[in-house]
Amino acid sequence: MSTDSRIPLVVLGATGMVGQRAVSLLRDHPWFRLAALAASERSAGRTYAEACRWLLPGEPYGGAGDLPVLPCDPAAVTEAARGTGVALSALTSDAAREIEPAFAEAGWHVVSNASTYREDADVPLIIPEVNPDHLGLVERQPWAGSLVTNPNCTTMPVVIALAPLHRAVGIEAVTVASYQALSGAGYPGESAWDMIGNVRPHPGNEEAKLTTEPRKVLGTLGSDGVRPADFAISARCVRVPVADGHLVAVHVRTREPLAPAEAEVLLAGFDGGIEAPTAPRPLIHVLQERDRPSPRWDAGAGHGMAVTVGRVETCPVMGLKLFALAHNTLRGAAGAALINAELLVTSGRLPRPVSAP
Amino acid sequence: MSTDSRIPLVVLGATGMVGQRAVSLLRDHPWFRLAALAASERSAGRTYAEACRWLLPGEPYGGAGDLPVLPCDPAAVTEAARGTGVALSALTSDAAREIEPAFAEAGWHVVSNASTYREDADVPLIIPEVNPDHLGLVERQPWAGSLVTNPNCTTMPVVIALAPLHRAVGIEAVTVASYQALSGAGYPGESAWDMIGNVRPHPGNEEAKLTTEPRKVLGTLGSDGVRPADFAISARCVRVPVADGHLVAVHVRTREPLAPAEAEVLLAGFDGGIEAPTAPRPLIHVLQERDRPSPRWDAGAGHGMAVTVGRVETCPVMGLKLFALAHNTLRGAAGAALINAELLVTSGRLPRPVSAP
Amino acid sequence: MSTDSRIPLVVLGATGMVGQRAVSLLRDHPWFRLAALAASERSAGRTYAEACRWLLPGEPYGGAGDLPVLPCDPAAVTEAARGTGVALSALTSDAAREIEPAFAEAGWHVVSNASTYREDADVPLIIPEVNPDHLGLVERQPWAGSLVTNPNCTTMPVVIALAPLHRAVGIEAVTVASYQALSGAGYPGESAWDMIGNVRPHPGNEEAKLTTEPRKVLGTLGSDGVRPADFAISARCVRVPVADGHLVAVHVRTREPLAPAEAEVLLAGFDGGIEAPTAPRPLIHVLQERDRPSPRWDAGAGHGMAVTVGRVETCPVMGLKLFALAHNTLRGAAGAALINAELLVTSGRLPRPVSAP
Amino acid sequence: MSTDSRIPLVVLGATGMVGQRAVSLLRDHPWFRLAALAASERSAGRTYAEACRWLLPGEPYGGAGDLPVLPCDPAAVTEAARGTGVALSALTSDAAREIEPAFAEAGWHVVSNASTYREDADVPLIIPEVNPDHLGLVERQPWAGSLVTNPNCTTMPVVIALAPLHRAVGIEAVTVASYQALSGAGYPGESAWDMIGNVRPHPGNEEAKLTTEPRKVLGTLGSDGVRPADFAISARCVRVPVADGHLVAVHVRTREPLAPAEAEVLLAGFDGGIEAPTAPRPLIHVLQERDRPSPRWDAGAGHGMAVTVGRVETCPVMGLKLFALAHNTLRGAAGAALINAELLVTSGRLPRPVSAP
Repeated sequence: MSTDSRIPLVVLGATGMVGQRAVSLLRDHPWFRLAALAASERSAGRTYAEACRWLLPGEPYGGAGDLPVLPCDPAAVTEAARGTGVALSALTSDAAREIEPAFAEAGWHVVSNASTYREDADVPLIIPEVNPDHLGLVERQPWAGSLVTNPNCTTMPVVIALAPLHRAVGIEAVTVASYQALSGAGYPGESAWDMIGNVRPHPGNEEAKLTTEPRKVLGTLGSDGVRPADFAISARCVRVPVADGHLVAVHVRTREPLAPAEAEVLLAGFDGGIEAPTAPRPLIHVLQERDRPSPRWDAGAGHGMAVTVGRVETCPVMGLKLFALAHNTLRGAAGAALINAELLVTSGRLPRPVSAP
Repeated sequence: MSTDSRIPLVVLGATGMVGQRAVSLLRDHPWFRLAALAASERSAGRTYAEACRWLLPGEPYGGAGDLPVLPCDPAAVTEAARGTGVALSALTSDAAREIEPAFAEAGWHVVSNASTYREDADVPLIIPEVNPDHLGLVERQPWAGSLVTNPNCTTMPVVIALAPLHRAVGIEAVTVASYQALSGAGYPGESAWDMIGNVRPHPGNEEAKLTTEPRKVLGTLGSDGVRPADFAISARCVRVPVADGHLVAVHVRTREPLAPAEAEVLLAGFDGGIEAPTAPRPLIHVLQERDRPSPRWDAGAGHGMAVTVGRVETCPVMGLKLFALAHNTLRGAAGAALINAELLVTSGRLPRPVSAP
Repeated sequence: MSTDSRIPLVVLGATGMVGQRAVSLLRDHPWFRLAALAASERSAGRTYAEACRWLLPGEPYGGAGDLPVLPCDPAAVTEAARGTGVALSALTSDAAREIEPAFAEAGWHVVSNASTYREDADVPLIIPEVNPDHLGLVERQPWAGSLVTNPNCTTMPVVIALAPLHRAVGIEAVTVASYQALSGAGYPGESAWDMIGNVRPHPGNEEAKLTTEPRKVLGTLGSDGVRPADFAISARCVRVPVADGHLVAVHVRTREPLAPAEAEVLLAGFDGGIEAPTAPRPLIHVLQERDRPSPRWDAGAGHGMAVTVGRVETCPVMGLKLFALAHNTLRGAAGAALINAELLVTSGRLPRPVSAP
Repeated sequence: MSTDSRIPLVVLGATGMVGQRAVSLLRDHPWFRLAALAASERSAGRTYAEACRWLLPGEPYGGAGDLPVLPCDPAAVTEAARGTGVALSALTSDAAREIEPAFAEAGWHVVSNASTYREDADVPLIIPEVNPDHLGLVERQPWAGSLVTNPNCTTMPVVIALAPLHRAVGIEAVTVASYQALSGAGYPGESAWDMIGNVRPHPGNEEAKLTTEPRKVLGTLGSDGVRPADFAISARCVRVPVADGHLVAVHVRTREPLAPAEAEVLLAGFDGGIEAPTAPRPLIHVLQERDRPSPRWDAGAGHGMAVTVGRVETCPVMGLKLFALAHNTLRGAAGAALINAELLVTSGRLPRPVSAP
């Protein structure tokens, strides 16, 4: 291991649903080595296998069951990792408030899935295939390290499906309805009693996030920060009894007319151009079956990092409508943070490891 | 039974999901007596208990297990019923094409849940609480009897929630996303393999129905027929693993501004004024909990005949948004046809039975 | 209300899943009036509607939303109820430990669903239709009031199905496998993530309860207490994604041979003879369909108080096998406690209210 | 492809649930090349992508979407495959009756998942890790080729868990209760209406198969055929709303006492010794968590070919009890047939391809 030139990476909040996905993704990553796991004080001091109830199919603890769980303390983590590197944050928004800046201050590059700082003027909200240039915002940050965020899991399929359309003809207005999977609520998350044979409107602030995040991601970076894209967007969010995969029904009005067939060409051809281990090829799968995308079949597309789109059709109200789907804890959370970490490498902000292609 | 002055009623298509609901609703109905059951040739000649796999909780066969199942032949049915009366049609759209006019021709008043004739210029599409006056269209029908239809199960909560708003300020545009229950697909309907832990876009023409039916129901009856209401509407329809109850997320633009609180007052106060055994009081329940309406809790409101509405909120795109829910095989199918039959009585087109209040 | 001669009844633990079922059952009960609601200190001081998230379909709060929630303190409850009466305990086993004896001491007749005292030598474990004579055990209790328990929700269908066979020919050995509904875990209970498209072995001590409780209920009351029935029983318990209704697969060896048809006659004819408002007629429904009993269809039999049995067949290992099903929060919990309260009346231990039949 | 020395393999019944699993498993198989696909006349003449609705996650059509679908006719298949080889039959039991002997007659080695010939005296019923020697039965078959069957999907976890115990101390009696996944019913299989939030006793002859198949697999091959193992076994079979993975609760009486810890050692150490591409290592995973095995987590163990066992405990009735789980369409069907084909190679009945290890 002494010759391992890969960048040290710590997962903050490693014991939760998203943290576990992150740990699993890091198995044999070519650029990052899983250098440490950190979680709440309650878990600290135990091994990962002791500290967490493993929630995923496949190899328990992502092969990291013997790693000690550290507290979310920059000094302790830096020591264990033998230096700084990437801190992938799967923290709750409350926990992130103090911990993430502390890690950035200590020189760590924080790629965060928490919502806490997404709307902060100096913190970029990034999907590498969509707005990698927003990474420039970190120049305005006061820390030795940096803080980059990714959008929430429901925003993800919406923005990736809208991005090529917005680029081509401009978007004017959007209505969204979501069909959100259980894993989006974390663990234990929703009560089985509430969800069995049932769907329920999301009682939290998910709809509010959908009115702001897409506009920031699709916004323009200028000298004074990110100017949000100029369109209105409104959402209805509903939890459904699906394990993984957020489906969204999107009605969209574009600034110039766009036929469904044209939209499909734009969608299928869009990939953002990032060359990174976690970037799927293609980014968007355009399906033709009338009952797709459908989470149990399509959430795993591109190892859970691709977006599937279907039923691109004319809408008599808004002009265009479509369904889009993304795996909410991979593309929409753990994978979103990881690919942001990879962007730090491809953009030159972190040195490319020797073993990298 | 010789002194039973109630109107004879036959259920056409009695063995399917909707037919079974209809039979259950007719147990001890004050105005109608279940005079005969009719179904496809395959079932004819057997008792109801022999001919159908009972699909509902509660008393098997709605207490009618010993009734013989007749073919859908007007002469046979008229003889068995000792006269004509109401034919409640739960037929498939294919079967309805010939059978319903034949019954109307033979003097039966057909109240149909089939989609076949809903868009026919001379056939009213009625929700008694919304557009009872459209019943006047039957004057244009050539038959000794008549044919009245009800909207499809997904249209139902949409229209009932829109009706009071349309009446008050006019509707300009609507986008809808549906969360449709399994019973809407009939039996056997969806494969469990497709639906377990899954949702799937509805591959049929459900979305098309939602662009036409609401406009006809909310349209204006003139001397030359029904002029559809002048608004655009677009829908995305998705099947979800819920037993009963179609939830819809509705974004609506009204012709004059309408605050959520005003909309709630309009909704809660709307009841259409029909006094009939199957008409719920209130018609619309306006809920305040942020995670409601939700099918497992709310589909049974008003014995499955009420509509529940929740989360009436401002929408930055369309102005207003809300969720609405209706039991799809009761308010949205069997009950919809039955209350149309009751409208025939309250409107004076059928004689009110002596036992009626 | 001043002329209401009904017996005051308080629900202890009124805010949980079983407590809510109990409150619902007490609406318009002919013998008992809901005199007070009590719950943990956290809930005390609020109205019932404020203190609980209502978990059931139908009328919220069982119509008792305005009642104040008291602490589980005998003095406070006695004052509110204007005297003592029946305390229906839906407490957790921990909470029951001190609270139930305190109420019995204060003169209340406690009918408890908690497992805490079920195995206590001086506490009867009763199903009124099976072993009403065990009520005599309360003579040995030191309190002004009394304490009676009912078996756990999985034991219930097992014992009711075994009782007539045991009485007729004696039981020698039993193996059971359960298919247990979500409501048995209370609220929030199981995580939806764990249960969606999944079943899981019950990690608690449910299997242990099934080796002791059936033998006590079917045991013999003698001068020195209850002698457990002399048979061995072993169970495997599994949670399944069903809302309500515990299904059990039972293999049974009887002391004398018993043909399936004979067993069916015994089952169908067994009713225990109690005449009480909550006692179903018949007690056991013997079904002939090969895919029954099945929880969604059959859990509601007899208003949730009947047991359904099916597939009574020869077993090459044990001699006889069958499926049995009972609604776990009605017959298996809230209704079990309530019918035990009714037994206190029919047995003469509590005065029969004037309004009773 | 001209240098491809792998054995040609045709999948009979390629369009169904099990056929699709088989096709997926054959992608890049080291010993077999997918030489042809065959199905009913209805599908013949179309490409595989045209002929089937793809039912599995992952790559559609297992990469074989362009292959033509042939009728199940030995001559046509032999011509397309340029010779005979292995015919993996995923046919229904009805279709298998004539087709399988016809292929065996034509020189094909049929490895069948159909139940049709499992109980035939001259047809081996094989799990390679358990009774590979039964392959000798094919000597008694009249065909140029041969016919080998595998047990049904519910028998599979039962027999694999019992085999090491039977070998060590002998089994005397077994009671089983199953929790069977939806994919076991094929497609469309169970109606979603029947299964949502529900479980239902299996109405077919599944329980009968469980009384005979385990005894044949664990039986002894002698000069006059297979003598079934001498134990009694009885089962209750229930369908549960799980996608894949049959769980069984097993109570077992052994001929000599066996402590749970001893049983665990036997189970964990049992692998049957076959070295083949589809054989998992280990064969049996013994889990210690009290809520395992559980299908969503464990059905995929060993790429769906391993069996997971848990909760090995003392049973007061039978002596020992445990849970076992196997993926029903992999280990219990398509993989079972494929590993039987591999046994034909490891046993020398088919030539080992050059490319094989």
